[in-house]
Parts: sequence; structure tokens; C-alpha cells
Amino acid sequence: MVNVAILGFGTVGSGVAEVIRKNGEHISERVANQIALKYILDVRDFPDSPFADKIIHDFSVIEQDPEVEVVVETIGGARIAWEFTRRALSAGKSVVTSNKELVATHGYELMQLAKEKNVSYLFEASVGGGIPILKPIRSCLAANELQEITGILNGTTNYILTRMIRAGLSFEEALKEAQANGYAEQNPAADIEGHDACRKICILSSLGFGRQVSPEQVPTQGITDITLSDVDFARSAGMKIKLLGRALRRESDGRVCAYVAPHLVSDESPLANVEGVFNAITVVGDAVGSVMFYGQGAGKMATASAVVADVMEAARAKRYIASNCWEAGGEDVVYSSDEISSRWYVRVGDELDVPGAKRLHAPNAPEGESAWVTDKACTAPVMAAALNGRDVKVMFRVLE
Amino acid sequence: MVNVAILGFGTVGSGVAEVIRKNGEHISERVANQIALKYILDVRDFPDSPFADKIIHDFSVIEQDPEVEVVVETIGGARIAWEFTRRALSAGKSVVTSNKELVATHGYELMQLAKEKNVSYLFEASVGGGIPILKPIRSCLAANELQEITGILNGTTNYILTRMIRAGLSFEEALKEAQANGYAEQNPAADIEGHDACRKICILSSLGFGRQVSPEQVPTQGITDITLSDVDFARSAGMKIKLLGRALRRESDGRVCAYVAPHLVSDESPLANVEGVFNAITVVGDAVGSVMFYGQGAGKMATASAVVADVMEAARAKRYIASNCWEAGGEDVVYSSDEISSRWYVRVGDELDVPGAKRLHAPNAPEGESAWVTDKACTAPVMAAALNGRDVKVMFRVLE
Repeated sequence: MVNVAILGFGTVGSGVAEVIRKNGEHISERVANQIALKYILDVRDFPDSPFADKIIHDFSVIEQDPEVEVVVETIGGARIAWEFTRRALSAGKSVVTSNKELVATHGYELMQLAKEKNVSYLFEASVGGGIPILKPIRSCLAANELQEITGILNGTTNYILTRMIRAGLSFEEALKEAQANGYAEQNPAADIEGHDACRKICILSSLGFGRQVSPEQVPTQGITDITLSDVDFARSAGMKIKLLGRALRRESDGRVCAYVAPHLVSDESPLANVEGVFNAITVVGDAVGSVMFYGQGAGKMATASAVVADVMEAARAKRYIASNCWEAGGEDVVYSSDEISSRWYVRVGDELDVPGAKRLHAPNAPEGESAWVTDKACTAPVMAAALNGRDVKVMFRVLE
Repeated sequence: MVNVAILGFGTVGSGVAEVIRKNGEHISERVANQIALKYILDVRDFPDSPFADKIIHDFSVIEQDPEVEVVVETIGGARIAWEFTRRALSAGKSVVTSNKELVATHGYELMQLAKEKNVSYLFEASVGGGIPILKPIRSCLAANELQEITGILNGTTNYILTRMIRAGLSFEEALKEAQANGYAEQNPAADIEGHDACRKICILSSLGFGRQVSPEQVPTQGITDITLSDVDFARSAGMKIKLLGRALRRESDGRVCAYVAPHLVSDESPLANVEGVFNAITVVGDAVGSVMFYGQGAGKMATASAVVADVMEAARAKRYIASNCWEAGGEDVVYSSDEISSRWYVRVGDELDVPGAKRLHAPNAPEGESAWVTDKACTAPVMAAALNGRDVKVMFRVLE
């Protein structure tokens, strides 16, 4: 018997309890051991929940119970979740989480602690919800030197962009609709400003390339400046606008450039056809070429199923899993996105030519503005110099 | 040090040797152990190969060398490969393979032997080449009851269909082009008649649903009857023709229906946009919903990288991997595809109405033929009865 405690009975935490109950027999069979839910920690009581008898309010009960082998942390954030994770690992318990903020900021330190205590710290659900991505990277693709990871990592912004593209809604209208449908939070900043995607590309980059990449090393641009005319301009070029998280490894010194920004993506690219709340992540390796993982990137049961799969792995391994780790970060891990050349999309507040660029057309674009795609690739500083003095409304890369 | 022997120095076998040499340092780091290539078994000599000194011609050297821990079988077929696999496992060596025919027909028996000897039998590369699919199913999706697996499993046929759709080539022309480009073999029967896809859906089905499904239990229809007019008829309905392998689990008794056949797929489906030699596999689970895995389904280095990842897993585990197995087969594993209702595409040798069906249009269709899509779902026997006496040229399902 493997006893599990869940920290935080919110959306994902209650989903984990449900998956364990619903598929318990099947799960225990596969682990060749019974997975039993012993405690659920929350500040609230849930008298009407079928799990009411599991609810406790004092973390030290879990910490001090030697029967608890696996702790599921679904509190979120990097404050109390951080403290409880450290205490659980220190007490010799494996920890499984969907908490991208905590892994992106303190992943290395927590994995070191797990290693020291010979337990697991697993977080498949922190990227892409239920989509298998971290384990395939560390396992199936392990014989490759990875070269690039590029993904649509945030379902909320992809939903908003899809509704702008498909239904002609404005950004504000699409955001309101996303909120009404439960796809966006009342305070949508973390999604629309790109911070959620930033945390995810940090985790992907750290795991894929081997050293901690931290959010402050990742330039992050959201979608708040994108207008319907940008969508129309893109369409006239056979392109779609997508918010991408990217991590590129430089062959010469192994440094990584990670950033989050909107991109023009050709209609022919598999990423262009990823719509609504779906996520997709492409991974490029030296042997495998390009592979893509696709599915709903969020959702209670999908995310919970990824958490439970990690619980199963921790229950089976009963030790530190060496393949699931990366080395310490540092300034020498990254290089600047200013060094990356690409073609550029730019919308400016006048009708003057942008040198070396092709003008795009949109029937309802605001008068006095124009949008352009450059013919040749160049870096951001070169592009900025070329646009010096111009009123740049929005500027981002074309995905090559 | 973990010593490896490769059986068969063909495309995949030589790719495995190259990946081990090229990424050896990186690979050994990840396994925390050196992976060393000790022997390559082949009937031929390769005096000009950098691996010439590894070539041997007698399997018993490998069998009797206690230093060899992992055997890579890339011979193919189910005769000599079967014998060598049994002998290697019996000698207490883990075996890794890309041989779909052997796994689809003798997988259960070989896994039982591996279990008995407490070694691994791993075959990630047997489905989808380098695309991670089997390990994600047995690991990341392990908390789910799976409901369906549907995939474009054969790159050759997908290339042919894509060229018919995109370039208007006839089946024969597209096949010739595929052969000229090295995407189809000189004897293309295994691909175009669906047998390759059949073996892959057997493996996916066995692993995903837990009991051996054998090729003779899987009705298999290839693409040899598909003409350019079918492609045009499909286009007029906003659809594409794709050869799919499918496995569907029936909730009531847990039986599985697996089959291979062309399907009409809506342009809106992610599968419709999988083009050329690419493969894609969608897996539907009760918690995760639908996830898709996408990439090149073949290719020397891609397939080799999946083989080497399995070598790494076997080297790390040094024991039987319990999650990578299924139970024995039997007649009670499957149910007939005749029980599955769907809408149908049918092309008939006359112009008469097909009852309850909508007529499709193609500018260059042969005179005197017509094609139809039924409005309502029904089973194959019901459809056959409705078409009784008619000259049916081709008939297959619409993917719902």
C-alpha cells in the first residue's frame, strides 16, 4: 500500500482525488501496489464532499506520518507550496506537482533536495496539462541532442487568438468570452502577458537542455497589443498569429535562448492548426527530427491524470529518479534573443515604406497605419535601427 | 559499462551504431554508465565502415558473452529475428527492437520470457519510428482507462495519398514517385495493402488495452482501390482520404475492435493536416481526453534514436520492466468491426441514388460512376444490405 496526501483541494487537487477513486483498481494493478488516498490538506472544510473524512488542516500531520510516501502539491504559487514541498521532501516523501511557478523558479533546488533524500520530485502536469511531454523528453528522446523546443503553451491566449482569427472578435471581446467560458481567470494577467507560457518554457528548456533557466532570464511579450488588424494582415500573408514559447540551443557553446512572444506562423505549419484551448509542443532533436505533442493543455481531469501518472511512477520507483533533473542555472546558461535573426512583422503608425519589407493588406485596418513583413532575416537590434524614429505599434517575429 | 550488440547492420542497425557514437558522451552521462558497442552481427562484411572491427557472423558469440547486457534486434521479420530474440532473452540479455512484425505476432510470448529471465524487452521504435508513443501510453497516460487509439501509422501510404490530393497524381504515379524517393520499397505490398499499419495497431492496441491483439484479428484494407476521383469526391465534401489504424474499446465488456482501412477525415480534424511521410497517433483516455503524437514515422536516424532510448532504459533498469507488458490474447479479446456504426463513403458503378446518402461531385469522375456519403451512421452489414446488387467500387467509413 502506498499512502498519498493531497495539498490543496482546488480544481486539480479534487481531480486527483477523483481519478484515484475512479480508476483506482486499474491504477493499483499497474503499479502492483494499492494507491490509497490518506489525507487532503486544505484551509476549508468540504462537508458535502465524498472526501470529507480525508480533509485535515495541519500540514505537520502529513509531515510526521511515516505512512505517507507521496505528497501531491496542488496549492500553486511559490510561497506556502514551496515551504510544504521542502518540508515533505525533507521528511523523505516523494512530491508530485502541477505547480509550474514553483518548478520554474525553484526546480533545481527542490530536485537537489529530492536527490539528497533519495525520493522523487515529479511535475509532468506542470507543462501541457495532460499532454505527455516531460517524460517523453527525458526518456524517449534521451538519445538525442535537442536543438529546439517551440510550443503553444497557454490555452487561454490561444483561445483568444483563435476567436479573433475565426470569429473576428476584438481582443477585449475574445477575452470576455474566454472568461465567461471559464478559460480565462478574472485577473487574466498571468496568461495574456505571457508569464504562464514563460514558466512553462523555463521548465521545458531546463529539462531539455540540462541547466536551470529561470523566468527572469526569459524575455516575455504577451498578446495585449495584438489587434484585429494584425490578425487580418497576417491572413493576407497566409499566416496566423500564435503566442509561442521557444528555447533554442546554440551549437557552438551549448547556451540556450528562451523567450515568449507572438509570432507569425505559416498556415502550412502544424502549429497554425492548433486552435482554441489546445496546446502543442514541437521538439527538435539531432536524430529524431521534429516531433509534436498535442492536446488540451489544461482542464481538471486531464491535468489530474498526469499528476496521478507521476504518483504511480513515484510509487513504483521508491527512489530519486536520476533522469528527471537538471543542473544549476547561472548567467552562462543563456544567450540573448537579440542574437537571433528572423524575418519580422511590424505594424507602424504611418504609411511609409519599411525598407526591405513587403506591405500587407487588411480591409479594415485603421487609416494611417500599415503593416509589413521583412524579406530577409535580421536581428532585433538591426530591425530597431531600421525603424528608428518610426511609430512602431507592434513588432514580432515570423516563425521560420 | 553496458555492452551492446546489434543484430543486423541494415538501415536501422547502422543508425543505432551512429547514434551511439555521435551522442555517446551525452548518452552515457544520462545513464550514469558507459554504453559501449561491442558486436554487430551481419552475414555481410563491411570493410569500409568505421564499425568494421565490430562485425561478427556468429550469433553464439553474442549469446555466450556474459559481458553483453543489451541486444538490439534490427533484423526484421519473424523468423531468424524470433529465434535470436528468444535465445538472447534466454541468455539473460535485455532485447530492444524496432521489429513490428515480431512484436505484433509474438510480443506476449517474448515479454513472458523476458519476465521469467528478469530482463527487458522494449520496442518503442516499432511504432511511429522516432515519435514517442508507447512509453507515453504506458507511463504518462497510465492513470487513464483508454477508450480509443487512432492513427496515421504508415508514412508510405500517407505520402501516396498526399501526392494524390496535393498534386493530382494517380495512385500508380504517386507510388512510383514514392519508390523513386526511397519512401516505398520495390515490393510495396506490406505498405499499400495495410499490413504494416495492421502490425502497428496490434502493438498499440495490446499495450493500450492490456491483452495481445494479433494481426489475424484485425481486418485490414489498404489503399490500392483508391482513385483520383475518390480524392476529388472527398474534397467536394471538405474531407481528405487517410489510411487509419484504429482500436476502440467497448465499455460494456472491455473488448477491443481493431481494424485498418481508408477513412474520410474532415479537413478540420488534426489528422487531416498530417501530410507526406508524417505519422500521427491520437489517444483518447477517460481523464486526459484526446492527445496526439506527431512526427516522421520512419527514417534511419529517427528510428535509431528511439532504439537507443530503449537501450538506455534497459541499461538503467537492469531488470524486467513490469509496465511494458500485456496479457495473453484470445478470441474474447476482440469484437467485430461489423458492430461499429459510422457514416459511409461509397463509390458505385452507376448513377442511381444510394438511399439516405448525399451525392458528392468531382469534375473528372469517370462517367457512369457516382459517389455518396450517408447521412446517418449504420453498421457495415446494414450498409451492405442497402447496396445489395449494386456494383460497389470502393466503400469505407467517415471518421466521426
